[in-house]
Amino acid sequence: MTLKRLGGVWAPAITPFRHDLSPDPERFARHARWLLENGCSGLAAFGTNSEANSLSVEERMMLLEYLVAQGVAPERLMPGTGCCALTDSVRLTAHAVGLGCAGVLMLPPFYYKGVSDEGLFRNFSEVIERVGDARLRLYLYHIPPVAQVGISIPLIARLLKRYPQTVAGIKDSSGDWNNTAAVLDAFAGTGFEVFAGSEVFLLANMRHGGVGCISATANVNPAAIHRVFENWREADADGMQEKIAATRGVVQKYPMIPALKAIVARGLADAEWAMVRPPLVELSAGQRESLAAELDADGFRLGLTS
Amino acid sequence: MTLKRLGGVWAPAITPFRHDLSPDPERFARHARWLLENGCSGLAAFGTNSEANSLSVEERMMLLEYLVAQGVAPERLMPGTGCCALTDSVRLTAHAVGLGCAGVLMLPPFYYKGVSDEGLFRNFSEVIERVGDARLRLYLYHIPPVAQVGISIPLIARLLKRYPQTVAGIKDSSGDWNNTAAVLDAFAGTGFEVFAGSEVFLLANMRHGGVGCISATANVNPAAIHRVFENWREADADGMQEKIAATRGVVQKYPMIPALKAIVARGLADAEWAMVRPPLVELSAGQRESLAAELDADGFRLGLTS
Repeated sequence: MTLKRLGGVWAPAITPFRHDLSPDPERFARHARWLLENGCSGLAAFGTNSEANSLSVEERMMLLEYLVAQGVAPERLMPGTGCCALTDSVRLTAHAVGLGCAGVLMLPPFYYKGVSDEGLFRNFSEVIERVGDARLRLYLYHIPPVAQVGISIPLIARLLKRYPQTVAGIKDSSGDWNNTAAVLDAFAGTGFEVFAGSEVFLLANMRHGGVGCISATANVNPAAIHRVFENWREADADGMQEKIAATRGVVQKYPMIPALKAIVARGLADAEWAMVRPPLVELSAGQRESLAAELDADGFRLGLTS
Repeated sequence: MTLKRLGGVWAPAITPFRHDLSPDPERFARHARWLLENGCSGLAAFGTNSEANSLSVEERMMLLEYLVAQGVAPERLMPGTGCCALTDSVRLTAHAVGLGCAGVLMLPPFYYKGVSDEGLFRNFSEVIERVGDARLRLYLYHIPPVAQVGISIPLIARLLKRYPQTVAGIKDSSGDWNNTAAVLDAFAGTGFEVFAGSEVFLLANMRHGGVGCISATANVNPAAIHRVFENWREADADGMQEKIAATRGVVQKYPMIPALKAIVARGLADAEWAMVRPPLVELSAGQRESLAAELDADGFRLGLTS
């Protein structure tokens, strides 16, 4: 393979909304720059934790164009472009490639359940063929706990065989290390880039041939997570890994997306950052206070974690 | 309540695709007219079995406009307009109301799982407020086996209390008669219109205060299903009900959407009708033959079932 490899710590950048629930490109770009300056190799914008599936195609395109216009290097962007509708996936993917994005992170179509690998293969194949651009680097997004439609190992094998220059890697958000290990065993040796879906598996992923992680909590703890990535071969890697896993453990006691936004809102003293779009609901005042207290006890400070 | 009541047999009209996977408005309109002339009170276009979630917002709007332009009365249309993204749901709902549609059938946002009734209430409430049109008649779409996000009885109660002139009914596709019965017990007395999600429960639904059914198989068996609706108080209703349930039993041995399209393709000798969009896959030749043989044995003839 001659693909440029990505790797590192990527954040599914959270998407800020104004009080009227419209997406806020300015806060979005500020958060994006902060992430890139504080340990993130890149941004998997429009992921699950970005509330991407609560955004229209036009809203996603507007936000992505704004990021690039504000000077965020497209080489550091891997936007989510997988939708239920083939035509939407094609449109978003072509748009991202046209902007020069490093890759796209693609959910399978997730409305119909129990679909076959043949049907999923056709979906990804149609997107690749219709986009028809050699620059496309497609990362598969496996997140069965949410999408309920997963990416099997035989499907990866079939896609890699047919599109070896395009199908570049996977984000495994199964939460099941055995699955990540099986994907690594099957494909990492050929250059297929396996990102853990959470920093909880970052060190294990690196030790088994993976390339990094794409994790929700990288939105608020990028520097510490990056330190594990940079130092995974060092003797103290396990201790650093334990620390980032502990911080994640605190955050994920709460609904993840509202919690991440509450942390940013508190850190920036900017209450509007806590807005989420329905069907999500912001944290209650009690949840906000207990999350803050727990993070303080953990020694966590936004942007200055040690 | 002073709402105009709908009721009867409504078909989630299947959506034809050309060989290039583009939606075909002409075949769509022909099928729509055939359904309306053969027993359907109306069309719940863009339902689950319409592959609506495989269509972009623009594709749905184009098809709906085409139907109306071709003379399909909007009073007989209840398009699906519930999407993952609030802004898409608002856009489709406003469009349907603007065309004069009798109602809309609204999925909850279905990407994020385990969301709260508060979050779902906010979603429906935002759609209703943003559309801001007294003509809107909203039918809730409860289909947890597919959407994985359902509509609870407390949520219905809260929506009805807040929007008594707008929240008009529900399609219950839970497949669980106990749930339909509980919804009927709680709300049918106030004029809330409960459609069974399949003709299997049509007679039971009518006997308990429901208003009809919205069923996939109404795409191919509308006349016989309509006969049960018209004659549900008659002595021979149980026999007619058994017959339509038996026909459905044959069809649902196969993947439903490809099977419906295969039946129409065969009935019209129009192979292109069998096309489905990924992630769905058309029936194999063997499946097509065995489905046809089973339906023939059942005495089923498209448009002429007895």
